[in-house]
Amino acid sequence: MTILEEIEGVVGKKGLIIGDDVFNRKAGIWIDDGIKADAIIRPKDTKELSKVLSICNKFDQKVIPHGGLTGLAEGAITQKGQIAISSERMTSIEEVDEIGRTITVQAGVPLEKVQEEAEKYNLMLPVDLGARGSCTIGGNISTNAGGNMVIKYGMMRDSVLGLEAVLADGQIITSMNKMLKNNSGYDLKQLFIGTEGTLGFVTRAVLRLREKPTSINTVLLALDSFDEVIECLKYMDKGLGGNLSAYEVMWRNFYEVVTSSNSNHNPPLPLNYSYYVIVETLGADQDKDTALFEELLEVALDGGIIKDAVIPQSETERSKLWSIRDDVEQHYKDGPVKMFDVSMPISFMEKYVQEVNANFSAHWNEYKCVVFGHVGDGNLHIIGGVGSNEGEATELMEACIYEPLKSIKGAVSAEHGIGLEKKNYLEISRSETEISLMRNLKKALDPKNILNPGKIFD
Amino acid sequence: MTILEEIEGVVGKKGLIIGDDVFNRKAGIWIDDGIKADAIIRPKDTKELSKVLSICNKFDQKVIPHGGLTGLAEGAITQKGQIAISSERMTSIEEVDEIGRTITVQAGVPLEKVQEEAEKYNLMLPVDLGARGSCTIGGNISTNAGGNMVIKYGMMRDSVLGLEAVLADGQIITSMNKMLKNNSGYDLKQLFIGTEGTLGFVTRAVLRLREKPTSINTVLLALDSFDEVIECLKYMDKGLGGNLSAYEVMWRNFYEVVTSSNSNHNPPLPLNYSYYVIVETLGADQDKDTALFEELLEVALDGGIIKDAVIPQSETERSKLWSIRDDVEQHYKDGPVKMFDVSMPISFMEKYVQEVNANFSAHWNEYKCVVFGHVGDGNLHIIGGVGSNEGEATELMEACIYEPLKSIKGAVSAEHGIGLEKKNYLEISRSETEISLMRNLKKALDPKNILNPGKIFD
Repeated sequence: MTILEEIEGVVGKKGLIIGDDVFNRKAGIWIDDGIKADAIIRPKDTKELSKVLSICNKFDQKVIPHGGLTGLAEGAITQKGQIAISSERMTSIEEVDEIGRTITVQAGVPLEKVQEEAEKYNLMLPVDLGARGSCTIGGNISTNAGGNMVIKYGMMRDSVLGLEAVLADGQIITSMNKMLKNNSGYDLKQLFIGTEGTLGFVTRAVLRLREKPTSINTVLLALDSFDEVIECLKYMDKGLGGNLSAYEVMWRNFYEVVTSSNSNHNPPLPLNYSYYVIVETLGADQDKDTALFEELLEVALDGGIIKDAVIPQSETERSKLWSIRDDVEQHYKDGPVKMFDVSMPISFMEKYVQEVNANFSAHWNEYKCVVFGHVGDGNLHIIGGVGSNEGEATELMEACIYEPLKSIKGAVSAEHGIGLEKKNYLEISRSETEISLMRNLKKALDPKNILNPGKIFD
Repeated sequence: MTILEEIEGVVGKKGLIIGDDVFNRKAGIWIDDGIKADAIIRPKDTKELSKVLSICNKFDQKVIPHGGLTGLAEGAITQKGQIAISSERMTSIEEVDEIGRTITVQAGVPLEKVQEEAEKYNLMLPVDLGARGSCTIGGNISTNAGGNMVIKYGMMRDSVLGLEAVLADGQIITSMNKMLKNNSGYDLKQLFIGTEGTLGFVTRAVLRLREKPTSINTVLLALDSFDEVIECLKYMDKGLGGNLSAYEVMWRNFYEVVTSSNSNHNPPLPLNYSYYVIVETLGADQDKDTALFEELLEVALDGGIIKDAVIPQSETERSKLWSIRDDVEQHYKDGPVKMFDVSMPISFMEKYVQEVNANFSAHWNEYKCVVFGHVGDGNLHIIGGVGSNEGEATELMEACIYEPLKSIKGAVSAEHGIGLEKKNYLEISRSETEISLMRNLKKALDPKNILNPGKIFD
């Protein structure tokens, strides 16, 4: 029997996609190319997946876990000879524990579905990102997804209480803890969070839900210097006592393009400032929270920490404000660009951006280096444009952006992961001994190297 | 050369304790017995420790990591033939990054020293426990310490941004990340958090500091039923919008004893209720936070969710209130008792306590089964007293308390760890495949099984 025949015996016809149907599927929602794998397997539950993986392990068959294919670091890219295993049929929401405030789901459930389910109980999964409609919980876990509320609620890791994963040899590790506190032995779930499917295939999870906030306050600020950006962050964080949920900074070149006459956005504040910051808070008492928020802003305006501010007067205005921050597409309009995702201690940030600009200008007379990001988390996104986003041009941009991270101990990936895309730069952020320990773990859990091989490191 | 001679060559005379001086040191601050190891090694830094461990590894020498010896699960107990390695000379506070809000310390720094250092900058390490003066950061990390603020800030794991650890063979893993977001490869620090020194010896850490809250509100509530305990938790958590920092419940039998005429405490509320709850909030605006807090309490009193309440009117009164919750000693007065630390989904809690009581009463005519704990985290402490806390009596108590956890998927250790004490009960909370994966990890990182061998599992 061939391996695919054996697998079909487990998952049935419905569970197997082969031939042209494979390549006819896009390799990622941001990728035009098709999936190159020999087959896509679609197990319907953990048991089927376990059997599939034990067959693959026996045949030394390389497998690539597939969630919603919304990743930004080539973590789910396949090659000929590999097979993809998709969680697309594992989409059941198993339980909402209203009292314990947890939700138990299969890995293939899209993030948005979990958000909607939680909402029914006036609860919230505090992880949110643009791809919410397509990305899956399994993918969010495997990549330790970030997003816009990390300051207040942490990353995906912080919302995972328990999970189930299948190891390369088919062993099922069921570790579906529902408690905030459990020090009974090693916290095994950590092995599968943020390891990009290289140590196991996540099949189910228990997620922590929070009470849904009932108050929200938002403002767009204008600041003149990066020192003010830092000072204002500290000031707001301190003043808001744990309710600060977003501190999103746009460098002037980001704001300018997105609010230009070519775009759909009017600039809510004039263009003559250096930094624009969206500050948002989530709380439980709209009147008191708004009073506190406005008091804080007033003092900061009087004291000169902030130079200008505009508070949206309706939900429509608020979402218009956010749509400026979210309209990254505007920067993709004229010419190819590439998006980067790095992090560093905030005190190095201003110098870092200067250095990146200096690096770009040493190589190109004309270039785009647009900066924005979750500054409250130390996370910057940089959109680099140098006329091409392939081959040497890309490598040069990567060098310009990643090399300066070395001395300041920054990270080549803040929230997107490493995948194939950043594999060559992992050594900028991690030492040889760290990478060798990663390899040691990989070998212990997947001795035949069949699970997402070649991702993160070789 | 003997192993101790080789080690002395590394750490010098000052770094080595042998002979009677070893046994003259107590095996733990709650233990009367002395340390039974052949020697205590006191390296002054990571480099020395690395050399010591590589010597030990060469000689197949078992080593037991020692921090402040305040653990409650026999995680640092030594035997003849083993040697202890203490972090007591690794006590330097290396850096406070006021802007990045991190503190970098060596592992032997006591928790309280870090708290005090943070305070100087109006910052806070949001981990606190009774043993703060003696317990060390390395120990807090290795046991993933809990404490009283877990609802708002999480456990020790959530305050560790980066760390350095030495593996069994002496390899130094320096992973001193300072960012909230870093998805550059596996998050290796997780291997050393909560693994009780079995996978590596933590030598340094970068901890996340928070803005120090400037408002605090506290109340002691009386409730009639456990349903009210659950309802009130949800109500307060929702109403406070993320500022709830403690939800500590005392069952009536706890409150009765601690406020009896034999104690130093007067009962702030009468004795005729079933549950007493300390609710505390941390925020940034005392006036507004107090207004909200009192409004919430009023509505809850009117609505009958809570039956009675007393708000401390000064810091002295507040600390008197907490001293009732903290005066666990009162239960140690007449006859030997044993303290347990378990967790479970809150919806099972009432029935669980009934079942434990039924188990006790099936075995003993007279017994003590006093319950209190961090109910907001699903964490209960139980003080069991049956006339003896040794041998069979203890085993029987353990069975009474741990067996009912099986069906409700509770944890035999919420925050204390497993150590030697709970090793025999690990299987109640973890499956065979989970434990076998733990063993697999142990083998990958410490193939000769020299690091804290026999702790957690065999």
